[in-house]
Amino acid sequence: MVKMKINIINGPNLNLLGIREPEKYGKMPFEACIDSLQIRFPEVAFGYFQSNVEGELINELHRSAGLFDGIVFNPGGYSHTSVALHDAVAAIKTPVAEVHITNVFAREEFRHKDLISGACAGTVSGFGMDGYRLAVEAILEIQK
Amino acid sequence: MVKMKINIINGPNLNLLGIREPEKYGKMPFEACIDSLQIRFPEVAFGYFQSNVEGELINELHRSAGLFDGIVFNPGGYSHTSVALHDAVAAIKTPVAEVHITNVFAREEFRHKDLISGACAGTVSGFGMDGYRLAVEAILEIQK
Amino acid sequence: MVKMKINIINGPNLNLLGIREPEKYGKMPFEACIDSLQIRFPEVAFGYFQSNVEGELINELHRSAGLFDGIVFNPGGYSHTSVALHDAVAAIKTPVAEVHITNVFAREEFRHKDLISGACAGTVSGFGMDGYRLAVEAILEIQK
Amino acid sequence: MVKMKINIINGPNLNLLGIREPEKYGKMPFEACIDSLQIRFPEVAFGYFQSNVEGELINELHRSAGLFDGIVFNPGGYSHTSVALHDAVAAIKTPVAEVHITNVFAREEFRHKDLISGACAGTVSGFGMDGYRLAVEAILEIQK
Amino acid sequence: MVKMKINIINGPNLNLLGIREPEKYGKMPFEACIDSLQIRFPEVAFGYFQSNVEGELINELHRSAGLFDGIVFNPGGYSHTSVALHDAVAAIKTPVAEVHITNVFAREEFRHKDLISGACAGTVSGFGMDGYRLAVEAILEIQK
Amino acid sequence: MVKMKINIINGPNLNLLGIREPEKYGKMPFEACIDSLQIRFPEVAFGYFQSNVEGELINELHRSAGLFDGIVFNPGGYSHTSVALHDAVAAIKTPVAEVHITNVFAREEFRHKDLISGACAGTVSGFGMDGYRLAVEAILEIQK
Amino acid sequence: MVKMKINIINGPNLNLLGIREPEKYGKMPFEACIDSLQIRFPEVAFGYFQSNVEGELINELHRSAGLFDGIVFNPGGYSHTSVALHDAVAAIKTPVAEVHITNVFAREEFRHKDLISGACAGTVSGFGMDGYRLAVEAILEIQK
Amino acid sequence: MVKMKINIINGPNLNLLGIREPEKYGKMPFEACIDSLQIRFPEVAFGYFQSNVEGELINELHRSAGLFDGIVFNPGGYSHTSVALHDAVAAIKTPVAEVHITNVFAREEFRHKDLISGACAGTVSGFGMDGYRLAVEAILEIQK
Amino acid sequence: MVKMKINIINGPNLNLLGIREPEKYGKMPFEACIDSLQIRFPEVAFGYFQSNVEGELINELHRSAGLFDGIVFNPGGYSHTSVALHDAVAAIKTPVAEVHITNVFAREEFRHKDLISGACAGTVSGFGMDGYRLAVEAILEIQK
Amino acid sequence: MVKMKINIINGPNLNLLGIREPEKYGKMPFEACIDSLQIRFPEVAFGYFQSNVEGELINELHRSAGLFDGIVFNPGGYSHTSVALHDAVAAIKTPVAEVHITNVFAREEFRHKDLISGACAGTVSGFGMDGYRLAVEAILEIQK
Amino acid sequence: MVKMKINIINGPNLNLLGIREPEKYGKMPFEACIDSLQIRFPEVAFGYFQSNVEGELINELHRSAGLFDGIVFNPGGYSHTSVALHDAVAAIKTPVAEVHITNVFAREEFRHKDLISGACAGTVSGFGMDGYRLAVEAILEIQK
Amino acid sequence: MVKMKINIINGPNLNLLGIREPEKYGKMPFEACIDSLQIRFPEVAFGYFQSNVEGELINELHRSAGLFDGIVFNPGGYSHTSVALHDAVAAIKTPVAEVHITNVFAREEFRHKDLISGACAGTVSGFGMDGYRLAVEAILEIQK
Repeated sequence: MVKMKINIINGPNLNLLGIREPEKYGKMPFEACIDSLQIRFPEVAFGYFQSNVEGELINELHRSAGLFDGIVFNPGGYSHTSVALHDAVAAIKTPVAEVHITNVFAREEFRHKDLISGACAGTVSGFGMDGYRLAVEAILEIQK
Repeated sequence: MVKMKINIINGPNLNLLGIREPEKYGKMPFEACIDSLQIRFPEVAFGYFQSNVEGELINELHRSAGLFDGIVFNPGGYSHTSVALHDAVAAIKTPVAEVHITNVFAREEFRHKDLISGACAGTVSGFGMDGYRLAVEAILEIQK
Repeated sequence: MVKMKINIINGPNLNLLGIREPEKYGKMPFEACIDSLQIRFPEVAFGYFQSNVEGELINELHRSAGLFDGIVFNPGGYSHTSVALHDAVAAIKTPVAEVHITNVFAREEFRHKDLISGACAGTVSGFGMDGYRLAVEAILEIQK
Repeated sequence: MVKMKINIINGPNLNLLGIREPEKYGKMPFEACIDSLQIRFPEVAFGYFQSNVEGELINELHRSAGLFDGIVFNPGGYSHTSVALHDAVAAIKTPVAEVHITNVFAREEFRHKDLISGACAGTVSGFGMDGYRLAVEAILEIQK
Repeated sequence: MVKMKINIINGPNLNLLGIREPEKYGKMPFEACIDSLQIRFPEVAFGYFQSNVEGELINELHRSAGLFDGIVFNPGGYSHTSVALHDAVAAIKTPVAEVHITNVFAREEFRHKDLISGACAGTVSGFGMDGYRLAVEAILEIQK
Repeated sequence: MVKMKINIINGPNLNLLGIREPEKYGKMPFEACIDSLQIRFPEVAFGYFQSNVEGELINELHRSAGLFDGIVFNPGGYSHTSVALHDAVAAIKTPVAEVHITNVFAREEFRHKDLISGACAGTVSGFGMDGYRLAVEAILEIQK
Repeated sequence: MVKMKINIINGPNLNLLGIREPEKYGKMPFEACIDSLQIRFPEVAFGYFQSNVEGELINELHRSAGLFDGIVFNPGGYSHTSVALHDAVAAIKTPVAEVHITNVFAREEFRHKDLISGACAGTVSGFGMDGYRLAVEAILEIQK
Repeated sequence: MVKMKINIINGPNLNLLGIREPEKYGKMPFEACIDSLQIRFPEVAFGYFQSNVEGELINELHRSAGLFDGIVFNPGGYSHTSVALHDAVAAIKTPVAEVHITNVFAREEFRHKDLISGACAGTVSGFGMDGYRLAVEAILEIQK
Repeated sequence: MVKMKINIINGPNLNLLGIREPEKYGKMPFEACIDSLQIRFPEVAFGYFQSNVEGELINELHRSAGLFDGIVFNPGGYSHTSVALHDAVAAIKTPVAEVHITNVFAREEFRHKDLISGACAGTVSGFGMDGYRLAVEAILEIQK
Repeated sequence: MVKMKINIINGPNLNLLGIREPEKYGKMPFEACIDSLQIRFPEVAFGYFQSNVEGELINELHRSAGLFDGIVFNPGGYSHTSVALHDAVAAIKTPVAEVHITNVFAREEFRHKDLISGACAGTVSGFGMDGYRLAVEAILEIQK
Repeated sequence: MVKMKINIINGPNLNLLGIREPEKYGKMPFEACIDSLQIRFPEVAFGYFQSNVEGELINELHRSAGLFDGIVFNPGGYSHTSVALHDAVAAIKTPVAEVHITNVFAREEFRHKDLISGACAGTVSGFGMDGYRLAVEAILEIQK
Repeated sequence: MVKMKINIINGPNLNLLGIREPEKYGKMPFEACIDSLQIRFPEVAFGYFQSNVEGELINELHRSAGLFDGIVFNPGGYSHTSVALHDAVAAIKTPVAEVHITNVFAREEFRHKDLISGACAGTVSGFGMDGYRLAVEAILEIQK
């Protein structure tokens, strides 16, 4: 059986997950999150990439296009400011499911605009770390 | 065993699902959607309510507060204009998972503002009818 | 001969026509207006619906879709605030001719934005009660 | 002696007064509030109407025009979005005193715009449930 | 019998009607449109003027004031930018019925603002070439 | 019996009350207004201060903090422009009831923003000179 | 003695001065205004030009640059919309005194922006026809 | 012969005229300016008042109302921010001619909005110190 | 050999090129510019048209559509304000290359919006008079 | 040895420092702050001025120009609204170091605009009472 | 003969040229584009650099300053969001010619603002891959 | 004695300090600046990091959190556009003192918004290279 391949790409500051501000982002380091995803979805081969550099996220999106069946992407703070990431998502055919851990509409005004959403297949926001699982579910449904 | 109870509330024009504009919203009448949810989640007892009237949606949110463990809410066009629905969601303790069938950020400018999101537990948008399933998954996780 | 069927739908506060503020809206109760339309257009069977409830207007637009050849719609104050009515008009195939009795661009700033116009076949505004006749004429021409 | 007649109209979510969020809106169910108003103003016959439906509030405003000497109106979340309610208040001659329980300018930005105030005789905001009493006082003074 | 006199004034690019972009503006050269209006309204003597020059449109509006009983005016692209045409319409007493062939609210954002509408008797938009007939009807009703 | 102490502070141009523009602000000089308040509320000792100088109003708010049980404050034109007065009200613990004689939302656009309201206990606007009485009533209720 | 030469340039709709809306613009045809200026300033040779065409106003400004010592310019409705006229005034060295007959800040919002003022030597507005005299005085002082 | 009485009121920082920034505001102390006005207009009795305090300018406007036939007012930096001065000018019947020494539309964006102009009889801006003379001329014409 | 035909159309104030403000626009009268273009591109037959009148530019664009293979268009100040020119460019099939001599984004804010660019094949800005040559090169490439 | 002279000017509500809201502004009355500055900078002779009146702050800035070598200025709430204070700082040559005790960008939106900063030598914000010391250090460096 | 040296710098996603979305960006990989440029301009030594990382583009701009005679820069999506790239271009003396392959004004609203243009010598947009050639031509003319 | 450790982090284009635009940023290469800081603060061990890459600045902020007692951060052009850097500063507990060499409020409009300030302990701007010293002083005071 050929496994479905999904790449999880995390943007800026998400390397701090589980380390800092656990009251906001939970206590689980993201590696544990991937482990639990792997257990839940044994039929999927997960990739993982994190960078604080906008351009490296673009590179990884490009690279993923040929190698993965779907991308789960949390652009972090770049969600609200990056036309270049919008263009990177729009340029590839692989479906991209956007994730926001927190509810951006319940935070500062400058987080209410999302430049990247419009290029993604869809968005899951506000459900905490569970958003990653939901995004994987969404990708699996799209590629069924 | 006591079943988890989840109410699905659909806002304006969503009574047309499966009837009109199938290229945008799919061909499945929403009842079929609920049936397939019921099959997928046998441990859940689903309620269903649809209205085109903003105030009746408020009434149903109030009513659901005491009777259900979670609410899946697609506010349709009211998402972008209703402070009253924001207040209704904020007033009840039952977790509300917002669903948009289409990707609102890929549509007209007047759909980019969401007055209700900020009061919900989270939002799933752009994944078509599968968004309802994802929202149910999200509620189940919250209430686990 | 099969008569052309046109439904006239009036939104909020238009039940007061002829009763209040006659200097702005004329002295003719709207029933008289329909009577005079009937006399002028004997080849048309008119329906009439008025509601102050946004959602009931949506319901009536949905219902009209299958039953009428055209709709004359005065959304009143909802013109400037309702995405849901925009969506209802956009969802049905029956042509909708929008009417404003007064010239909205000569009134308060908050009446200069019209969220519903963009989904209608066309709009007639500022010609007083005669706007309804002009809208009927427009529908007849479209369906000729 | 003919009693002064004042109708109290409450908009969306105000049916929850005394039930939910008592820290924000007090512990008194609104019926108790009316009782205490009745005790304080024995010379007034109070009506009371609450609805979460914008159009029913318009209907009640229309209906009140002929039957009451004054209206105390808390439009709740519709204050910030409803041109139709503005028009309903403007269309009737009975003086309308607007009430906001909380101080809207100390809350979210989307509550800083009030579309209905401009059509009312005046507004009382921020003084909690006592605002209803102040509004009654204001009506009595106007109709003295 | 003295004929009613109505001047039809077309603004910029409307000399191309029937020649270019027939899918948007129809195949009928405007002269044919006037002919068909003349046939439909034998009781009216029509004038016709077209210019791409804003100031010549102002001149013609001034000149028409003394000579015609009504003006049907399609300001084309000047609708959205010309205070001077607004002033010209406002300065004359002859009623002016504005026409837009297409539905401006369904086009680019910069067409959503209409500086001239507020000075006109009324506006007909979106009904294609039939808008001219409707505008003539509106003038006839006003001058009845 | 210790009397309740309330200071009435009037901002710019309110020294002209009763002298100019009586059609807008009434014919009663403000001293008469205070007299009638004194008669109506014999249990209150009133202070009164008027200045056209923003900073003197700040001084008086500071001074009042230790000496009065409540403040009735009409900031006049400073309502729409003064962050400094907002800060002065926010800095003192004595409850401040804001009064506007006219309905600011029915006047020019630049009066629709109120920078001071958000720091006050509440606001009464549009009820003319009676607004001062209502504000006193509100203070008495707060301090009961 | 060489006379000072001043050209008076009037923009759109100002050919109607003295003919229409005398309550707003006075009863004096503009020729009479020039006559009275000539009597008042015998030491000045006046030119006069009026056009409703933006480009002809530009032409006249260019032409005036070599022939006149100063220009009195009332751009009418073009004041608020014309970058091209701004550039024309900026391109010539002859001092230009702008005149507005009415007080533009007391009129509609779209008259509050003046694109041409910034390129002129100065502006006189609101003093009616006397503004032309004041502008001539200003030019004489500049060229003294 | 009874002399015409005109009060010249200068706002913030205008006490520095002739002392600082002579390249922008000229080298003449303002007293010299008044002297030269007195020589030019022997038929006028001039008053002069300068203050940096917004409220004292309001006081002086009030005081001038009964004592002078006209006011020449340069509100300086308060022009762009003061609703209270707008109200003071609007409250008095004496005609007020506003003066700006420099061309505000050729300076920073925050000087492009003038809150006071709309309440004045008219405005002279950009003609340097000569603007005061022009404003006096304007007052004399108004009171002729 | 049939020569390629390109029309160069210059908008308002560009008749002053080489005459005024040489530090900004160079010392070469535009005729010299065309001569040097003719020398550089012997295979092209150039037309030339300049007008300060917006409508005459529209006329020339229409006229050029049938006669030329490409248009080099510098709309000058109309770039930032003219919907009508946008429509004229959009209505013709001949490719239009827009030229701005100066870098509009390095100048005043009101030059940052370009209403005409969106309808052109492309734009060259900021390269001085050489922009015309580059635009010709661009047209030649398009029509190759 | 001639001492360096620095004037510390505090704007509205800063007389309350150490008295009210110590959690925000510290418990030290400002006099103690000056004392500790004097101890830290024995080579400086400090002046101190506080006023809640905008115009008196302007007066003091003018007065300081001739007498001090530098000014430390905390404009309080006037920072966000005063063009007149901007002009006063711009008019004097003495370097002005602006101080904000709190981090204005972490507070309400209406504190994010600073009209005065642009005219100052520099700004220190967010470092609490220590900001005054830093501003003195900055002045000393400038005047070294 | 010393060759002219021009560096071509491409921003985010432009590594995909010729690979993806050929209908929008052509089928030629960018290397082919450089080859054809080299053939066309044998007198130029071309450099080439592409990065998706904003900061590496800044680095390359800095590095180019000393080594090249001109820079052709396509900032891609960073055009609309990067102040840092604006500053990098402004900091170096080497002339920079900006290129956009597509017509940004004919695309989404968020592409209408260009933060980098103002710092460049000039911009070529909308002419497809030919824009690079035109930019090279522009640089050659500047450095002639 | 354990030395206090402070990391100085410079953002985009600040590697050019002392090399380019000395009239704006001084002639001292930044290394000399650190040397002089070291001399002035012998009790501090300084780190130094510069990058033009937004994400590397985020990495360095993260890394510094565990190793330094304070951070002096000049985000350069990213100040006005980077939510990701805001989040990085907010995520770490080490106090961050922001520095701007120039007075951003005296420069272009797009530099007036600072997205990062709100997350920093405080900001020093406009005092040139001395701002780094002041920021170090501020950190020392905070950590005292």
